[in-house]
Amino acid sequence: MTDTKSFGSDNHAGAHEAVLRAVIEANKGDAVAYGGDGWTRRATAELRRVFGAAGEVFLVFNGSAANILGLSLLLRRHEAVICAEPAHINTDECGSAERILGTKLLPVPAPDGKLTPDLIAERLGGHGDEHRAQPGAVAVTQATELGTCYTLEELRKIGEFCRANGLRLYVDGARLANAAAYLDCPLAELAACADVLSFGGTKNGALGAEAVVVMREGLSADAPYLRKQQMQLASKMRFLAAQFLALLDDDLWLRNARHANEMARRLADGVRGLPGVEVCLPVESDAVFARLDRRHVEALQRDWFFHTWEELGDGTAMVRWMTAFNTTGKDVDRFVAAIRSTVDPR
Amino acid sequence: MTDTKSFGSDNHAGAHEAVLRAVIEANKGDAVAYGGDGWTRRATAELRRVFGAAGEVFLVFNGSAANILGLSLLLRRHEAVICAEPAHINTDECGSAERILGTKLLPVPAPDGKLTPDLIAERLGGHGDEHRAQPGAVAVTQATELGTCYTLEELRKIGEFCRANGLRLYVDGARLANAAAYLDCPLAELAACADVLSFGGTKNGALGAEAVVVMREGLSADAPYLRKQQMQLASKMRFLAAQFLALLDDDLWLRNARHANEMARRLADGVRGLPGVEVCLPVESDAVFARLDRRHVEALQRDWFFHTWEELGDGTAMVRWMTAFNTTGKDVDRFVAAIRSTVDPR
Amino acid sequence: MTDTKSFGSDNHAGAHEAVLRAVIEANKGDAVAYGGDGWTRRATAELRRVFGAAGEVFLVFNGSAANILGLSLLLRRHEAVICAEPAHINTDECGSAERILGTKLLPVPAPDGKLTPDLIAERLGGHGDEHRAQPGAVAVTQATELGTCYTLEELRKIGEFCRANGLRLYVDGARLANAAAYLDCPLAELAACADVLSFGGTKNGALGAEAVVVMREGLSADAPYLRKQQMQLASKMRFLAAQFLALLDDDLWLRNARHANEMARRLADGVRGLPGVEVCLPVESDAVFARLDRRHVEALQRDWFFHTWEELGDGTAMVRWMTAFNTTGKDVDRFVAAIRSTVDPR
Amino acid sequence: MTDTKSFGSDNHAGAHEAVLRAVIEANKGDAVAYGGDGWTRRATAELRRVFGAAGEVFLVFNGSAANILGLSLLLRRHEAVICAEPAHINTDECGSAERILGTKLLPVPAPDGKLTPDLIAERLGGHGDEHRAQPGAVAVTQATELGTCYTLEELRKIGEFCRANGLRLYVDGARLANAAAYLDCPLAELAACADVLSFGGTKNGALGAEAVVVMREGLSADAPYLRKQQMQLASKMRFLAAQFLALLDDDLWLRNARHANEMARRLADGVRGLPGVEVCLPVESDAVFARLDRRHVEALQRDWFFHTWEELGDGTAMVRWMTAFNTTGKDVDRFVAAIRSTVDPR
Repeated sequence: MTDTKSFGSDNHAGAHEAVLRAVIEANKGDAVAYGGDGWTRRATAELRRVFGAAGEVFLVFNGSAANILGLSLLLRRHEAVICAEPAHINTDECGSAERILGTKLLPVPAPDGKLTPDLIAERLGGHGDEHRAQPGAVAVTQATELGTCYTLEELRKIGEFCRANGLRLYVDGARLANAAAYLDCPLAELAACADVLSFGGTKNGALGAEAVVVMREGLSADAPYLRKQQMQLASKMRFLAAQFLALLDDDLWLRNARHANEMARRLADGVRGLPGVEVCLPVESDAVFARLDRRHVEALQRDWFFHTWEELGDGTAMVRWMTAFNTTGKDVDRFVAAIRSTVDPR
Repeated sequence: MTDTKSFGSDNHAGAHEAVLRAVIEANKGDAVAYGGDGWTRRATAELRRVFGAAGEVFLVFNGSAANILGLSLLLRRHEAVICAEPAHINTDECGSAERILGTKLLPVPAPDGKLTPDLIAERLGGHGDEHRAQPGAVAVTQATELGTCYTLEELRKIGEFCRANGLRLYVDGARLANAAAYLDCPLAELAACADVLSFGGTKNGALGAEAVVVMREGLSADAPYLRKQQMQLASKMRFLAAQFLALLDDDLWLRNARHANEMARRLADGVRGLPGVEVCLPVESDAVFARLDRRHVEALQRDWFFHTWEELGDGTAMVRWMTAFNTTGKDVDRFVAAIRSTVDPR
Repeated sequence: MTDTKSFGSDNHAGAHEAVLRAVIEANKGDAVAYGGDGWTRRATAELRRVFGAAGEVFLVFNGSAANILGLSLLLRRHEAVICAEPAHINTDECGSAERILGTKLLPVPAPDGKLTPDLIAERLGGHGDEHRAQPGAVAVTQATELGTCYTLEELRKIGEFCRANGLRLYVDGARLANAAAYLDCPLAELAACADVLSFGGTKNGALGAEAVVVMREGLSADAPYLRKQQMQLASKMRFLAAQFLALLDDDLWLRNARHANEMARRLADGVRGLPGVEVCLPVESDAVFARLDRRHVEALQRDWFFHTWEELGDGTAMVRWMTAFNTTGKDVDRFVAAIRSTVDPR
Repeated sequence: MTDTKSFGSDNHAGAHEAVLRAVIEANKGDAVAYGGDGWTRRATAELRRVFGAAGEVFLVFNGSAANILGLSLLLRRHEAVICAEPAHINTDECGSAERILGTKLLPVPAPDGKLTPDLIAERLGGHGDEHRAQPGAVAVTQATELGTCYTLEELRKIGEFCRANGLRLYVDGARLANAAAYLDCPLAELAACADVLSFGGTKNGALGAEAVVVMREGLSADAPYLRKQQMQLASKMRFLAAQFLALLDDDLWLRNARHANEMARRLADGVRGLPGVEVCLPVESDAVFARLDRRHVEALQRDWFFHTWEELGDGTAMVRWMTAFNTTGKDVDRFVAAIRSTVDPR
């Protein structure tokens, strides 16, 4: 990593200093392990309140773990999960859902990362046929892996469709904060459609902490055991809890997410109109997906860190540029200038 | 938790301040995620050097995860694991080995927590019989869950027995530091018998960080994928690495463990000879197992936090008193005084 | 295998000729696959009736599969199973419960193969503690692997204990027919305590067919999918069903089991009193467990096929002699004569 | 099922009478269980010889089980499997690969059911990236679920591609006999590309028996344990073996498959040219896929049993008509006449 700001991922950023302060604060005296401490009680109570959750809240170490624990609360032993093809559980967790849960994923192509009732319906064939995998849950990601957000209306429709079809709804909220910032709505409203969801701290200024929020009653009972079996029970849990207390304090989570989103928009605005740069997807969170000539990508990557998302086969590539809570306007402007001088060297 | 020092567990202690400082230090600028950063490179290189490991080192979040990842490197798909009955994987991980690895544990009663070649041999019947679970690995814990330590000679014999019988050897080293302090030997010597072992930071002053150390060549190849599937790949891994860098710096890990061990001995020495208090097991790490009248246990637990290990059925109970890196001589002395005045109120 | 009758196992016997005739009968014309045929409908309806089952009946290929399917209907995802140490699922299925179900078995030493409420209670510690495996079901075997039978009263008490403690009860009935014959009671009475049980055909004259009988309502819904996932859905299921139709016809299952039991008693009666032969366990089904001098065992095994169950370390061994539906009185008498002339050559 | 011949599936047919005779023959006297009998020795030896297998042969109960056991011999613990989207393991085994093996399937759209090196290559991205599922094996089906066959040249190229890319090759041979008949080549030639393959008896006249054939040395060692764990070890295995002995005797397997294929061609020839009937796929085994008006499908299904494969949305449907070893020319001619009078009632 060079001294320049990374546009590679929102988890290239470190931790917000208020998070670090809270961890240091929590390092006072002894505390009962495994969550029987005051920090954990306060953090989970506050998360339940903020989300309007009828069930419990469980802290875990990372986003993949939140997804696995969350889904394991919603699936009968034999059931499968419908998700969008680019869903993190499908493409970026090395087959964890299949290996750890033993569940088959039924992915649906979704060019903007978003499922719809119609897309979900495509995978509902064979209901009641013992030869066919039986979907038990739908997993959506908010904000999606492609930087887009479901509107509240879109989520509501998916929720209704799920209930009407006996499916439970899981929301992968690794970037839920960014969606809440974009949609400018309370977390409780975003979460209302879900049976279980995750709320990510890591990509939003935490050292590493995620919450699994059980929205419906009657779904929490097995979670403590499943979290332990899934190796996600932190012994010094106060240090996970302290991170959430910092993020919740005075809505730091929201300020961080708003800032990251704003930086992404600034970047998108900066490059739009440049010759040979096409912003491919709506910029609704902290990611900008853009199409450039392959040579320009390579030239830029000599000085800047970011990922090529997809080779497009015609000499261009789609890249992903991500901002974070600690990206500055100046970082963006310097990056935009670098892009400009690369694609348009006059 | 009252203001008094907890003797409940070494993970009731917080983090050592040098660990916190290192985490704060690591929060400088951006860093590539998932371990592609300098802190992780340095920490894993240093751990490999200290252990004399021919394989790689993998950081994970907690001790249960280290055990599962470690064992998964040693087992063929169908194999079982021989362990002592009180082994953490058998009694305190909610069936994680069975659920996540699908492996059967073959526990052997071991009153002091320690396996021997003879005890291992008891579970080797049925070799080559497809109906019987086939042991592929032996798991020992060092220091054991009962506070005892294997001598180097005992470990060497187990290692030889394993090699002679086609078994691989895993060492659960959640408290390996305490064993190294007790035996006064280098980690490399302790580890030499093992194919894979874990090295715990959490119980020894970390916020939460464990290392899986692959001692033999040719066993590391699948570990990155298995760690990811097992939901143990930290995105901001520099913060796990920084904890180990602090613990390794100037042998803080050893100083912490020595101190905790010393406090346990001080406690044991303090209560030995008190009427109605029997120290049940050798005090070779940071735990004291003692037998007291049930009424005395209850009286003490009103003011002090510690666990009852086992009801003994004759009106007495075995309790576990644990010290930690941050236990002071004064804490111990006050606790001893409280025990004395409880069991011998004259 | 020599021409002499095997006393090695009840599955060394072939199939009863009425079973073969039924299979040939079922080979008439085409039939819908996977159980949608008339033979399967008749066999499962008849089994439901005979057992007084409120749930459904599912045919599978073998006893291990019946155990796994049966338990999978009774366990929440994280739960463990209490069983007797010599239970087939614990000792003779190569870790299938752990591998396929991911469930931890909690075995209890049971010298005669039988659990009791007290023995079950030993494994109930740690209820509600997320670190400890949480028992969700109890598995008993009837008749047991040691040839003994639970009385109806013993079963009733176990059933009540389970219900009082929130545990479900599974009965491994690979030799349920032998127990029914011994206890001289209807299958429905034997089964009344169970939530789910298996009913074995294979050891009682079938080619290979077992039934999973769901006794309680509301437990069958997932079974078709789990059976398919567990690779136990026969395409030409009529040939499994026909075997059960033959066994149920005119109570052939009972006649077969009665005969096998009688042969075991005849064998036990024949050797009792011989010098150096000790019948070790009550003979309550089709097995005789006897203790002999190791040299006599070896001498006998030159001409007769049977298994050594356990080396007893004092120069003697416990052997298992099993009879079957096709063992004749003459077979037994010749074997008894051989034993007599071996242990008492005068 | 009416009295008319089913065109629903090749497993609607019963067993060939030579198979039944062999089962009856095998019911002579006692035999050691679990495959230690002479029938099993002869059947597996003969299968090894016929296939030119360097590894062992393992008999199992059904095709799904053969696929799971076969794949489990080829995959490291974390690996995934590339297959065609319509592959049986992907669409018709209720998620068994994911549940029982914990393996992620990486399906590739393949309109004729056949993979190619180019199609396989599409799923090879992310090699060495711990976030991405790592393909360890490729699974092809021969004949495919769509009735097509890979040519020997096509298989050879896939085999070479796999070896060049460190992938192992599994062949699902539930209908391998039909492919051998169509390609008119020895089984050994068909199998040469594979590391492990299955050879189906059930769809070709057996009661229910499949073989897992290990073609390469060094891959068989774990198979006995995995078969047992996967609940596929038959106790009276002689009755599975006898079925294969019958099928191998005088190449009954080949005569059965040739006949079924011929009947499918006769059916296809009979309907080709009928107005409103389109044969959609090459007829290379025992299946005919045809497109008809939805109303004609419904009219035909009143008297004849066959499956609708896919609703095509324009008022037509693709149906699957399958023949079997016991389909007669007269059956086909009557069915063709019924189709003709339905689609062309003049």
